[in-house]
Amino acid sequence: MYTVGIRDHLMIAHSFRGEGFGPAQRLHGATYVVDVELKRPELDADGVVVDIGGAAATLRDVLTELNYRNLDEEPSFAGRNTTTEFLAKAVFDRVAERIGKGELGEGARGLTEMRVVLHESHVAWAAYEGELAPGTDAR
Amino acid sequence: MYTVGIRDHLMIAHSFRGEGFGPAQRLHGATYVVDVELKRPELDADGVVVDIGGAAATLRDVLTELNYRNLDEEPSFAGRNTTTEFLAKAVFDRVAERIGKGELGEGARGLTEMRVVLHESHVAWAAYEGELAPGTDAR
Amino acid sequence: MYTVGIRDHLMIAHSFRGEGFGPAQRLHGATYVVDVELKRPELDADGVVVDIGGAAATLRDVLTELNYRNLDEEPSFAGRNTTTEFLAKAVFDRVAERIGKGELGEGARGLTEMRVVLHESHVAWAAYEGELAPGTDAR
Amino acid sequence: MYTVGIRDHLMIAHSFRGEGFGPAQRLHGATYVVDVELKRPELDADGVVVDIGGAAATLRDVLTELNYRNLDEEPSFAGRNTTTEFLAKAVFDRVAERIGKGELGEGARGLTEMRVVLHESHVAWAAYEGELAPGTDAR
Amino acid sequence: MYTVGIRDHLMIAHSFRGEGFGPAQRLHGATYVVDVELKRPELDADGVVVDIGGAAATLRDVLTELNYRNLDEEPSFAGRNTTTEFLAKAVFDRVAERIGKGELGEGARGLTEMRVVLHESHVAWAAYEGELAPGTDAR
Amino acid sequence: MYTVGIRDHLMIAHSFRGEGFGPAQRLHGATYVVDVELKRPELDADGVVVDIGGAAATLRDVLTELNYRNLDEEPSFAGRNTTTEFLAKAVFDRVAERIGKGELGEGARGLTEMRVVLHESHVAWAAYEGELAPGTDAR
Repeated sequence: MYTVGIRDHLMIAHSFRGEGFGPAQRLHGATYVVDVELKRPELDADGVVVDIGGAAATLRDVLTELNYRNLDEEPSFAGRNTTTEFLAKAVFDRVAERIGKGELGEGARGLTEMRVVLHESHVAWAAYEGELAPGTDAR
Repeated sequence: MYTVGIRDHLMIAHSFRGEGFGPAQRLHGATYVVDVELKRPELDADGVVVDIGGAAATLRDVLTELNYRNLDEEPSFAGRNTTTEFLAKAVFDRVAERIGKGELGEGARGLTEMRVVLHESHVAWAAYEGELAPGTDAR
Repeated sequence: MYTVGIRDHLMIAHSFRGEGFGPAQRLHGATYVVDVELKRPELDADGVVVDIGGAAATLRDVLTELNYRNLDEEPSFAGRNTTTEFLAKAVFDRVAERIGKGELGEGARGLTEMRVVLHESHVAWAAYEGELAPGTDAR
Repeated sequence: MYTVGIRDHLMIAHSFRGEGFGPAQRLHGATYVVDVELKRPELDADGVVVDIGGAAATLRDVLTELNYRNLDEEPSFAGRNTTTEFLAKAVFDRVAERIGKGELGEGARGLTEMRVVLHESHVAWAAYEGELAPGTDAR
Repeated sequence: MYTVGIRDHLMIAHSFRGEGFGPAQRLHGATYVVDVELKRPELDADGVVVDIGGAAATLRDVLTELNYRNLDEEPSFAGRNTTTEFLAKAVFDRVAERIGKGELGEGARGLTEMRVVLHESHVAWAAYEGELAPGTDAR
Repeated sequence: MYTVGIRDHLMIAHSFRGEGFGPAQRLHGATYVVDVELKRPELDADGVVVDIGGAAATLRDVLTELNYRNLDEEPSFAGRNTTTEFLAKAVFDRVAERIGKGELGEGARGLTEMRVVLHESHVAWAAYEGELAPGTDAR
């Protein structure tokens, strides 16, 4: 299995609901250093997993939708705690949707798995990984 | 699959038995930067894999049992080479036991896998990963 | 010149005033990975620059005053942009004040310089460095 | 499952064929920081996954064959784009071949999987992972 | 003294002349992870050392002039070994020239020092640091 | 001012005397990731600060003298606490002595400063920096 990985980042404000979160129930924020790994069993004719420049641009676009925002006010996250693990899934879903729409080209149809890691500090991180659905209209 | 990861560290002395270890047969030591990843297929009602503060406290307690010690004198390791890979398993077992006893709460019953990585330098590391047994009394 | 360095982190929300900040004028947030370096020309009788455990506790206390907060609402920062460089100075001043009050013990009187670095992502950071005033009442 | 990991590096020149590569079609170069992870389900009698010193020497030998070269002129890569993912597989194959020949000793016969990661910068990397064939003549 | 730092990277091919370089006399290449630190004694009215977005764009432009090239064919480097330390100075000079021309705005006139670090691998790096000349036409 | 930096590591056992050290009074150990930076105001005729391969070999030799040892039993450290800052100075002195003896060649006579950093974990480090004495017999 081949993997290509890229790194970017995101800076947001939010707060959590639930006593278990302690002081993180207050409005605070985070930088998430975001790693996206895309996997497939064989390389394409150019010898790549995916166009890495295109993948980086797609990730940048997904992060721009969230960047420099207070996630407590994002309608798509209403009623949810935007924990690091929740956001890893949100980034996964948004990148997968764009791949499914063909934004990374036909070659990206061969991608079978993705892993998204969000590093919230030098001592804590969270991830979501799953399969990418193949098909004519992809995921 | 969701993952939450935390990092801490451990400083110990030890020596190895076996000619293949060369100068590491002498009493020496190591800092292990310890990464623990906990995994589960779904988030809990709070939107988390596990209470990350609780997981960090559990890891700290496990490492405190070993920290600032000469592992050659630890009865539980008698007759064993406390290699990095061996210690990764020892940390895995001790964290798993505490999860099984409910130290991380009922929510932690949903955890299905754990991976423990010990970085012994900037150029070498070892890991142990395995499943966490579910059940009323967990592992 | 000897240096001892320690790392901790801080998670806050804030916004900036000034068109040059672009989307960072919106309420957002950051994780700052905070490095503090303490310097002195000679070691003390124990062979240390300063009690590193004490220094880590002092840094933790300073960061706890700011952690998990919306800095736009902090009275001590009213009317100021809490940029990374501004916050590096704020951490410097607060650690220096505690050293001056003797929180790190008499031995810390020998400290002559401090450098504080705040890493806001994998590609950006800011720092403040300066002298620590010696004297019977330190700084 | 146990893992041992080691890190080394490689500095090469090359160029890519294909319009999608943009300016990387020109002759340029890269440092690859190379991580090799070797895995097996049980430790050997010494308590190790593999002799880490031996593994490091094997990796060094494999990288020396490629290091400080223009890969466009390497006969074994003729007609191929030596992308990061392609090179991850090339390193995998060469290390696996040496393990198969017994270069890491009989103990290395127990290795079941390998993962090779090449970091090409602080924001991009690629990997190849696969099984290692057991047997009297190994792979 | 305040510092702001930014990180980007550069991928080039080159070769060295001189027996001391051993195999690096062959055409090979490198990724340089480039850190630029800009310093000044006081913050400006916005509370910043310099517009970090502008500084990142300037660094990107400087690196684009060199990126994905064979430095052996760059007229401006003719007859010189483009070692890591030499290139650190080249990046320093090019960023300083742009600051002097006002590319980072009037606020950047207050910058007094710069440090450029090029990381060529996980175990080697080089740097150049020096003063930035103040004045109406800056450096 | 130009800098060249190299990284290596060291694994030792030791204990500390003094109640302030708490549990570190017990025999324990550490991995030190060692960074050495060598500085000079001008490059030599080859365009380098110093032969980086030679510097790495010298550092390796210095670290080999200490590696895989119990520093409590080293005669040269008798009666001293081998703290991280103390060891940074010890590495500084030993590398400086070798430079002074000409081990890095005549070109190394131009070196004017050195900084040695020992990272003891992901959250703590210490350093020693100072001038290198020029002259026919160097330091």
